[in-house]
Amino acid sequence: MIYIGVMGHGTVGSGVVEILHKNRGTIAQRAGDELVVKRILDLKTFDVPYMEIFTKNADDLLEDRDIDIIVETMGGINPAYEFTKRALNSGKHVITSNKELVAQHGAELLAIARENNVNYLFEASVGGGIPIIRPLKQCLAANQISEIYGILNGTTNYILTRMKRAGLSFEEALEEAKEKGYAEQDPTADIKGYDAGRKIAILSSIAFEGHVPYTGVYTEGIDDISHIDMLYAEEMEYSIKLIARARKYDNGIFAMVSPMLISNFSPLADVEDVFNAIMVKGDAIGDVMFYGQGAGKLPTASAVVGDVIDAAKHLNGTKKEPDGNGTVMNVLSIDDYESKLFMRLKAKDIDGLRSKALEVFEGAKLISIDDPGAMDEVAIVTPPITEGDVENLLSSLSSGVEDFEFIKSIRME
Amino acid sequence: MIYIGVMGHGTVGSGVVEILHKNRGTIAQRAGDELVVKRILDLKTFDVPYMEIFTKNADDLLEDRDIDIIVETMGGINPAYEFTKRALNSGKHVITSNKELVAQHGAELLAIARENNVNYLFEASVGGGIPIIRPLKQCLAANQISEIYGILNGTTNYILTRMKRAGLSFEEALEEAKEKGYAEQDPTADIKGYDAGRKIAILSSIAFEGHVPYTGVYTEGIDDISHIDMLYAEEMEYSIKLIARARKYDNGIFAMVSPMLISNFSPLADVEDVFNAIMVKGDAIGDVMFYGQGAGKLPTASAVVGDVIDAAKHLNGTKKEPDGNGTVMNVLSIDDYESKLFMRLKAKDIDGLRSKALEVFEGAKLISIDDPGAMDEVAIVTPPITEGDVENLLSSLSSGVEDFEFIKSIRME
Repeated sequence: MIYIGVMGHGTVGSGVVEILHKNRGTIAQRAGDELVVKRILDLKTFDVPYMEIFTKNADDLLEDRDIDIIVETMGGINPAYEFTKRALNSGKHVITSNKELVAQHGAELLAIARENNVNYLFEASVGGGIPIIRPLKQCLAANQISEIYGILNGTTNYILTRMKRAGLSFEEALEEAKEKGYAEQDPTADIKGYDAGRKIAILSSIAFEGHVPYTGVYTEGIDDISHIDMLYAEEMEYSIKLIARARKYDNGIFAMVSPMLISNFSPLADVEDVFNAIMVKGDAIGDVMFYGQGAGKLPTASAVVGDVIDAAKHLNGTKKEPDGNGTVMNVLSIDDYESKLFMRLKAKDIDGLRSKALEVFEGAKLISIDDPGAMDEVAIVTPPITEGDVENLLSSLSSGVEDFEFIKSIRME
Repeated sequence: MIYIGVMGHGTVGSGVVEILHKNRGTIAQRAGDELVVKRILDLKTFDVPYMEIFTKNADDLLEDRDIDIIVETMGGINPAYEFTKRALNSGKHVITSNKELVAQHGAELLAIARENNVNYLFEASVGGGIPIIRPLKQCLAANQISEIYGILNGTTNYILTRMKRAGLSFEEALEEAKEKGYAEQDPTADIKGYDAGRKIAILSSIAFEGHVPYTGVYTEGIDDISHIDMLYAEEMEYSIKLIARARKYDNGIFAMVSPMLISNFSPLADVEDVFNAIMVKGDAIGDVMFYGQGAGKLPTASAVVGDVIDAAKHLNGTKKEPDGNGTVMNVLSIDDYESKLFMRLKAKDIDGLRSKALEVFEGAKLISIDDPGAMDEVAIVTPPITEGDVENLLSSLSSGVEDFEFIKSIRME
């Protein structure tokens, strides 16, 4: 019998208790022993059949020597950070779905886990139920990973899907996402790309075997994407997605979250609604993609319980896993990032703007749509240019065109 | 230093040697020790810098007590079967990409491995480099898996992609696949679905934790798919794919390989060329998909080396993994399988056939395309019916229509 303490009985925590109960027979077989939830920490009171194991005192879990595995599904930094340190230092394995904590203190917590010969596992912190961290560490161990990119946030993907499929505005789609429980009342972390930024920091730390601070991830959100942008995308046979991307260079790591135009022929274009998909590029394997529900009670709890089973199989010592050496990696400036840009520009003299734009952005292509909202503007797709060069080119464009207005640009795959 | 013996220096075997050499630094770090190829068994002679470690005598590997891990990349049943048994019985871990052997003798070889406290690992036998077996065993351990389905054969997927995109006939596309090295000179195992059948047998044995004999997998190939079928698919916004599928029922397993019409909105529809994709349905996780190159030298070798690293980390004993209890599972007859069918029918009296078909297949919808090759036929999509019922319905249709001819049917997702 292996005893588990669950900290936080919210959406994910209650899902963990549910799965451990529902599938207890097969889980015992797979873990090699019966897994039993002994105590649950939560300040709220729940009307559930297992009320008697709840406590409001963390010591009841942290100082219980019978408990070998702590599931931390509280979220947020405090008090999860202190509780996790105490648990690891007292020789308990800790499993978490807490992406804020892993992104901010993961390297330190992994080091504490190693010192205490226990595991700190966080498969559920990225991509909900989608297996990605373990495959990265184990299945792709033969590879040098050069790049990771994908759709890591379900809320924004739902909003973009509804804008594309139902012609909704950003605000309408966000409202719908809130009604369906896909967006929080304060959706900032999702729509501004911060959530995806934390996740790509966690993934790239594993893939590139060093510590990529999430604060170094360049982040743009989707709140500026409009119905007109969607129409242009459709015209080009592209889809707009919030893409998180990390790439390894000789002198460091580049990591970014931003809306991007993805060709409809790319498998990522068809990842719709709240689904997530993560592409990994390795020197031997080429491209490999993992797809599934990136959030939600049972999918996320499924990943937590997968980690619990793994910890139970390695109860007396850490798994031999490469967690990097904790070296903080050099995060490169976005100025050197090169991509094609889709650009919308405006001026009184449309014809003059058009010819000047094609002159300044040499090799650019014009894109036009038949919509009243796009009548007095010029849209182009530039050849690949660096972020640093764009500013100079735009200022030489604006100096040659009266009443020039830069509407926006969106990076292209 | 951990010594490895490689049996078979063909496409995959030479890829394994290449990756172990190229990425030796990071691999040593991840495995916790240096991995060195000590001997290579092959009857052919190769002009490579490591010629001196080749041998034509299997005993040089099997009786070398320094060698802890055997990589079996010979393919075929004999002599791989005997060599694998000898290796396992002498306490060596065996890693293989040999799907024929795993599908036919996997259960027995796993039992022998367990008896000898070593591992028999075969991630590379399904889906080339795509991580699927380890995620199934570990990441999805919290789930009851109810279904696995997907595109498990790259050769046929390439042929179907070229038929769809370039309008080629089956024969032309097969010829092109041969020229590009994607199809073997004798392509039977691929185009008849036998290869995919072996792979779905392996996957379902793991997912359903019992032995699913590959001989029980109902198999249809793609050699009957025509240009006209592709046009109908396009009209319906569907794509034709060779789908392998296994589903668990209370009284057994159903497993099948056949061409299927897949909605263009399904992520599987966009899996093109030689790529593979595998969907898994679990009670907690919902749908999760794994996508990547299902074959090829380095992708497949990547999976083999991933397993080698795993074996190296668990050198002194098997990993605690559920391999099922070896019980042979009941494979259900295809007669009870229910699906919508796309059906092409012919008769002299087209109008009579049309109305009679809609009468017999109640609730069916007519499909028509504007192509000379489809002028004298009737195409319908039936409501879901079982395979067993189809025959009866067709015979009552044929008895009421003069010169009735059943052209073909294709199952629909």
